[in-house]
Amino acid sequence: MKVLLDAFGGDNAPHEIIKGALMALDENKELVIEMFGDEAIIKAELNALGYKGDRIIITDAKEVITNNESPVEAVKTKKDSSLVKAVEKLKTDDESIGFVSAGSTGAVLTAGFLKLGRIPGIKRPALAPAFPTIDGGQVLVVDCGANMDTDEYTLVQFAKMGNAYMKNVLGVESPRIALLSVGVEDKKGNEVTKKAFALLKEEKNLNFVGNMEARDALTGKYDVIVCDGFAGNVLIKSIEGTAETLIKVMKRCFLKNLKTRIGALLLKNSLKDMKNMLDYNSAGGSPFLGVKKIMIKSHGSSKAPSICASIKQVITFNEKKLIENIEKDIVAENENA
Amino acid sequence: MKVLLDAFGGDNAPHEIIKGALMALDENKELVIEMFGDEAIIKAELNALGYKGDRIIITDAKEVITNNESPVEAVKTKKDSSLVKAVEKLKTDDESIGFVSAGSTGAVLTAGFLKLGRIPGIKRPALAPAFPTIDGGQVLVVDCGANMDTDEYTLVQFAKMGNAYMKNVLGVESPRIALLSVGVEDKKGNEVTKKAFALLKEEKNLNFVGNMEARDALTGKYDVIVCDGFAGNVLIKSIEGTAETLIKVMKRCFLKNLKTRIGALLLKNSLKDMKNMLDYNSAGGSPFLGVKKIMIKSHGSSKAPSICASIKQVITFNEKKLIENIEKDIVAENENA
Repeated sequence: MKVLLDAFGGDNAPHEIIKGALMALDENKELVIEMFGDEAIIKAELNALGYKGDRIIITDAKEVITNNESPVEAVKTKKDSSLVKAVEKLKTDDESIGFVSAGSTGAVLTAGFLKLGRIPGIKRPALAPAFPTIDGGQVLVVDCGANMDTDEYTLVQFAKMGNAYMKNVLGVESPRIALLSVGVEDKKGNEVTKKAFALLKEEKNLNFVGNMEARDALTGKYDVIVCDGFAGNVLIKSIEGTAETLIKVMKRCFLKNLKTRIGALLLKNSLKDMKNMLDYNSAGGSPFLGVKKIMIKSHGSSKAPSICASIKQVITFNEKKLIENIEKDIVAENENA
Repeated sequence: MKVLLDAFGGDNAPHEIIKGALMALDENKELVIEMFGDEAIIKAELNALGYKGDRIIITDAKEVITNNESPVEAVKTKKDSSLVKAVEKLKTDDESIGFVSAGSTGAVLTAGFLKLGRIPGIKRPALAPAFPTIDGGQVLVVDCGANMDTDEYTLVQFAKMGNAYMKNVLGVESPRIALLSVGVEDKKGNEVTKKAFALLKEEKNLNFVGNMEARDALTGKYDVIVCDGFAGNVLIKSIEGTAETLIKVMKRCFLKNLKTRIGALLLKNSLKDMKNMLDYNSAGGSPFLGVKKIMIKSHGSSKAPSICASIKQVITFNEKKLIENIEKDIVAENENA
């Protein structure tokens, strides 16, 4: 069971990436990791971290794709980059079950789209992170940034992919699928969401529960939120930004004076639960749903625990046959069409 | 100085609406309020509240427009509704400086658009609430729900209206205008925002600072956030929803055990600041920018203090000549075109 890893993607590469890989290897004895990046540097890091095992393969790649370049151009021209080499290997190697990168989101998505390819019948793959909800569950947002302008048919496919994820990965029997809109009423929305609403209502195999408002994203009322990548990106980033802002304001309240500092001390352990709930990256990265193999985009600021979690996601998705299940639903769709 | 009030709009109408009006009358001795709604009920409420003054005019209106009906149809057919009667009065009466309603957003916007009319040259009026930022300032979101599908020219007008608001109402010398997108890089965005970006860059009279991410909405980096009403609605509702969720989680942490309860008690006063910052409605409602007179949509769940704040907003906007200033900028635009 081999997972491919972009050792040179992300703000904390390669040190935290490699450290995360070692954590994952430690937790799963069947796992082999193939790292892509500058071999000499990776070897030096592994030495420094005291790794003595034989479950790491290194494939040398001298180039790195950064956030500051055009994803399409970079993927097309930087053939010796850790990202491109890894995705090409992913495509051709049957033993490789999936890939993790904390590098440029645009480049990872482009490499997935251009080099790995889509599941037959999938119009547009989607970036689909899961968020913890207040009732202890999770909600999947499809899409949160891969597709800026989508049509209604693409939104229906997002719903199906989200449905397959929730059913097969999380074991939710009849996932509640909601369409992100500006109100819960049937008629609310923009031109594309109104058309998507009509199509989703006709989908017999989906538990489509209607339109939803952004304010209810974390309430646990929904299992899958369907939206284009622009709205989804606004949604997840404003959730993250508001959480960050509130924590700053809270800290300010805690540090105000001696009394508040004592109060904060008494609450310390209890507030850890809150911090954990808000640590959206500790659970891993965002799967890129709709491409032929498992690809996980880990947050750019990922540290070792997030990378480890992303690698474990690959293993879980593989066990749960996520790709095969998406494929099955899309084949069924085409046969009915 | 007369402000018109929809006494029958909102979840807590008419009691809280009328109570809010009395608060505003108490704070401003020049103010006269004309209330629209069932005269007998309003009179009974005023009696119950012990109002003895002569600065309230009542215009009888027997119908009420609810959230559950089509705004366009309701505004066209319910001629005896508190909303329609008020907006018609607003249009024709020179003494009336503005209007407040906590009723159906769609109906308020439709009445503004159809009955009151737009400032000449304005393509689409926009709902534009201001949010408190972490540095103690405010940020205006234009549009947050009036226009679901907009073109790039409309977004440029939103920028201009936001600029006029920030300059004239809040006295910000050179408001920092940002375009809501999925990243700060110039090339990021959907088809419409990319075109709007190019146009905004050419606007000599705007301090356009480029694309922004939803996560930075409350940081104080920006004075005006420009977006279509769909994305803006997702933005503000996910901010509100996340804040609500976090407060629930925080309360849960506080009530966990005796130790945490004591901690919470010690923090009580300090946390009030946080609560105030998050109470987005206490500062008033959202102006509907681009129509011929001042219209404020107060939150549907508004209680008396929010209604009072919304009425005070009308007075402030009138003093600062908001409408005239928007008009001036739009006339200048047309002369340059």
